[in-house]
Amino acid sequence: MRVVLLSGGVGGARLARGLVAIPEVELTLVVNVGDDDQVYGLEVSPDLDTVIYTMAGVEGPHGWGLAGDTFAMMDALEALPFDSTFRIGDKDAATNLFRTDRLAAGWSLTWVTTAIASAFGIAATVLPATDDRVRTKLFTPGGEWLRFQEYFVTRHHTDEVVDVRFEGAANAKPAPGVIEAISVADAVIIGPSNPILSIWPILAVPGITEALSQVRPVIGVSPLIGGAALKGPAHRVLTSLGLPAGNAGVAKAYDGLLTDLFVDKADSADRTRITSPRVRVTDIRIPDLAASTALARQVVGLL
Amino acid sequence: MRVVLLSGGVGGARLARGLVAIPEVELTLVVNVGDDDQVYGLEVSPDLDTVIYTMAGVEGPHGWGLAGDTFAMMDALEALPFDSTFRIGDKDAATNLFRTDRLAAGWSLTWVTTAIASAFGIAATVLPATDDRVRTKLFTPGGEWLRFQEYFVTRHHTDEVVDVRFEGAANAKPAPGVIEAISVADAVIIGPSNPILSIWPILAVPGITEALSQVRPVIGVSPLIGGAALKGPAHRVLTSLGLPAGNAGVAKAYDGLLTDLFVDKADSADRTRITSPRVRVTDIRIPDLAASTALARQVVGLL
Repeated sequence: MRVVLLSGGVGGARLARGLVAIPEVELTLVVNVGDDDQVYGLEVSPDLDTVIYTMAGVEGPHGWGLAGDTFAMMDALEALPFDSTFRIGDKDAATNLFRTDRLAAGWSLTWVTTAIASAFGIAATVLPATDDRVRTKLFTPGGEWLRFQEYFVTRHHTDEVVDVRFEGAANAKPAPGVIEAISVADAVIIGPSNPILSIWPILAVPGITEALSQVRPVIGVSPLIGGAALKGPAHRVLTSLGLPAGNAGVAKAYDGLLTDLFVDKADSADRTRITSPRVRVTDIRIPDLAASTALARQVVGLL
Repeated sequence: MRVVLLSGGVGGARLARGLVAIPEVELTLVVNVGDDDQVYGLEVSPDLDTVIYTMAGVEGPHGWGLAGDTFAMMDALEALPFDSTFRIGDKDAATNLFRTDRLAAGWSLTWVTTAIASAFGIAATVLPATDDRVRTKLFTPGGEWLRFQEYFVTRHHTDEVVDVRFEGAANAKPAPGVIEAISVADAVIIGPSNPILSIWPILAVPGITEALSQVRPVIGVSPLIGGAALKGPAHRVLTSLGLPAGNAGVAKAYDGLLTDLFVDKADSADRTRITSPRVRVTDIRIPDLAASTALARQVVGLL
């Protein structure tokens, strides 16, 4: 069973971990790169790394980095006149240093990602949405366009988001393999990631939305529990951009692309509120591998 | 007593540590940047860091990096398809990451170096020879121009050096403060560094040699003991470039610039062999702080 998962960071990564544990599933991930940035001169790809680390079961406890990592480098940076808000562990730095070095040497992000996924023993194809530079920018009431990492890490996603753009997306091409994987997929799943900040930057790459519209089913898993994200600003960003609150907003954000939407039991009322896509109610909390695998089985069990 | 020390890495750094321990000495270092390079996307300045780490008494045991550093980042890189010959410890990576980030932000190398020296509590002014990009390249019988780090780290300085050039030097300007420090110095010392690979790239920056020629004394400390470098290829490079062997070659490499040259007891015969500069014979081995300070006192005692 060929499955494509569109994913941002933590939520999508946890569903990926469940999907990759199902032997019948040939999994291809198409991962958001709108959060990518240069930090301390390092090329960081937070969602790609979170997906790979989580599928390997070695992700850090707070939604970034590696479990049990040390911070000798960051601690040494404390002595220097330097804003070290963005914490990178020593082992995590190796991943970023590898990517920085290889991109500078002319490798594509796809090649770099394949090498990292392989080093972590991932039994799935992990693709960036694009090898081109797409950068999510957020407009706030302060009148500034913030880079994603500024918004999310430095300012703790407390700013209201009144507009969003994906710089570079209009001229980006899908990474090699993305359209091919979607076009032969038995199902596409849109993971429980922030629709606007994690999935829109994927859909903004010309060709991807068109390819998805040719595939059935396209199954969404809501990032909301009881109308709000467990972590992060997904529900706030939906409404501040003028979309409906809750899962109605999630459905609307995907604008007819979904055939099905999994929502949590806490949001079972959405079954009657939302007429399209078809709403499926289950326990979508996936705090551990067992829950991830159970949800993944339910989602692909539809096929 | 205002003293300027021209320095490469280990040897010059050890003399610097002795000089900075003498309360009467106001020390300005002018440090080689010809070995600087981009490694894994990081801006490395090996001689500047060695000088700072050594003066702080926290230098690594093998002539690079920091004492007691960990290598979690390098160990993690082993899992990736990556040439990790150039080892950078986790704390040492912080220095390099800081420099990379700040240079990218538009700071000069002088500013970056001042901040690093300050973080390590160095009571001397540490200046790069230039804020411009100067890169030492070595021509070998293999017909290749090697970057310094390729020659030194990757190939363990085993290639014969038949020519040398300092890319960018002709258009480089001395870093702010270099000419000023030299022109008011009571003495300039050229440290026990490789004359050709560590000191020539400093002298190649237009204005520095001219400024030195106005100052007396200019005191060299030989990098040779018994005609050979304790570490590194200094003696081999002298002869492969057609200079005399031993301290005669050191004197010749500085081409009339020195007023005095300190040589080791093992080379006391050079006192009669070399007519200019004046040869001073003493114990120039400086394996520890006590020896460094003793030699430094002798050298500045000349004044």
